[in-house]
Amino acid sequence: MARYQVTLAYDGTHFYGFQRQEERARTVQAEVEAALRRIGWQDRTILAAGRTDTGVHASGQVIAFDFDWRHSPEALGRAMNSNLPSDVAVRAIAVARDDFHPRYDATARTYRYQIFCEAERDPLRERYSWRVWPAVDCDLLQSAARLLTGTHDFAAFGSPPREQGSTIRTVYRAGWRMLAGGLQLEITANAFLYHMVRRLVFWSVLAGQRMLSLQAFEHAIEAAQPQTPGLAPPQGLNLYQVCYSLDGLKSEVTKSDEI
Amino acid sequence: MARYQVTLAYDGTHFYGFQRQEERARTVQAEVEAALRRIGWQDRTILAAGRTDTGVHASGQVIAFDFDWRHSPEALGRAMNSNLPSDVAVRAIAVARDDFHPRYDATARTYRYQIFCEAERDPLRERYSWRVWPAVDCDLLQSAARLLTGTHDFAAFGSPPREQGSTIRTVYRAGWRMLAGGLQLEITANAFLYHMVRRLVFWSVLAGQRMLSLQAFEHAIEAAQPQTPGLAPPQGLNLYQVCYSLDGLKSEVTKSDEI
Repeated sequence: MARYQVTLAYDGTHFYGFQRQEERARTVQAEVEAALRRIGWQDRTILAAGRTDTGVHASGQVIAFDFDWRHSPEALGRAMNSNLPSDVAVRAIAVARDDFHPRYDATARTYRYQIFCEAERDPLRERYSWRVWPAVDCDLLQSAARLLTGTHDFAAFGSPPREQGSTIRTVYRAGWRMLAGGLQLEITANAFLYHMVRRLVFWSVLAGQRMLSLQAFEHAIEAAQPQTPGLAPPQGLNLYQVCYSLDGLKSEVTKSDEI
Repeated sequence: MARYQVTLAYDGTHFYGFQRQEERARTVQAEVEAALRRIGWQDRTILAAGRTDTGVHASGQVIAFDFDWRHSPEALGRAMNSNLPSDVAVRAIAVARDDFHPRYDATARTYRYQIFCEAERDPLRERYSWRVWPAVDCDLLQSAARLLTGTHDFAAFGSPPREQGSTIRTVYRAGWRMLAGGLQLEITANAFLYHMVRRLVFWSVLAGQRMLSLQAFEHAIEAAQPQTPGLAPPQGLNLYQVCYSLDGLKSEVTKSDEI
């Protein structure tokens, strides 16, 4: 029996989020557990770094589970991929410490959020980004991102996982980059509140459109009043990477190329 | 009554290609005609620049139709967008000459084909690109593209629209660029044979993987023997742009931002 750490990618469009539900809703967790059961896994549940919402994508969700697998981790990754539907895939796999937990051991998470600015619909971009109109001023967007870095009480932008839990988080890095198809925010923090990235993007875009001043944005962060309205849509969001300190792994993470 | 020239974008994933079919298959043409009928259009058919295959995308398909529309072209574009499903959209609209034909008047077409090189599946990229493994050598790919430019008999790489038709085409430009998510071929020609881009990509990738020498690739072009096997999958292909000489339009094409 060993504990495996697996990096998953999925297209969230046709999932009711990551977490398994009582109802027969299609979730990533249920699909992964079903795939594992088909290759002999008999445990009750897998562990995950985060619970992405309905419609949110992931390039680097991390899960862990115990499995008495008799072949190499690479063969396990391939076996899982053969049994997973086309919108979920194993990207990397490694043997972890017996007590490794993908959520509690994570030292940082990185999300990406993509937007593009056009007046009319574009079917080829709207699967993975939020169409925003009027266009944003990129410098204003970047200035808004700079206000986020550091340790803040983000109560205005999301709720903690447990009631009465802390709403203080540390953003290590936040910045927008220009891509061929639009603009992308990359934000890294020790952890995120529920809905935090989507609320921050919503307010940042308002600031970028000059519908909200940077001062008002900064004030909203400082005031830390809960229940701020406004939420950017899920399809622009991607759980891009979860980081762990290296001693959490028995062996180095196998790059997907080597599975 | 006026003739309208409309630029369409669509995600081809859930379409059985562009062209309307006798069977009840879902096609782009049928959806566009249904949307037009809902706003009062009564003609039999729309005209199109090209017939994209099942699963092929378009950023710049061009269609034309006659319509006794009493408001502005911009209002027509908006009315169409309100009546089209989420995977098709009008990107630009203009009034054209009464005899404008999107296929016969086209002076050039540009296609894009996207690939990425990885051993394992990636659900977030495979909707719009072809996963290729082993990895390609980019310089070889670029050298293969250089062999394509100019006027050649492309009989080895596709069939003409009409039986016994010419298989000679002129490629104005062909080159690969690196993107964040992979590699993209952009190829512009006066016209293309049926399946030509997908066959050229298939052979170029073989050359890029050193499974075929550039000499053999060049020989295949020169020999012009029909019925070459091999076809890159449809989801990497995008009909990106169709060009017309400016006198084909009564007014300038309205940019999508201005609809």
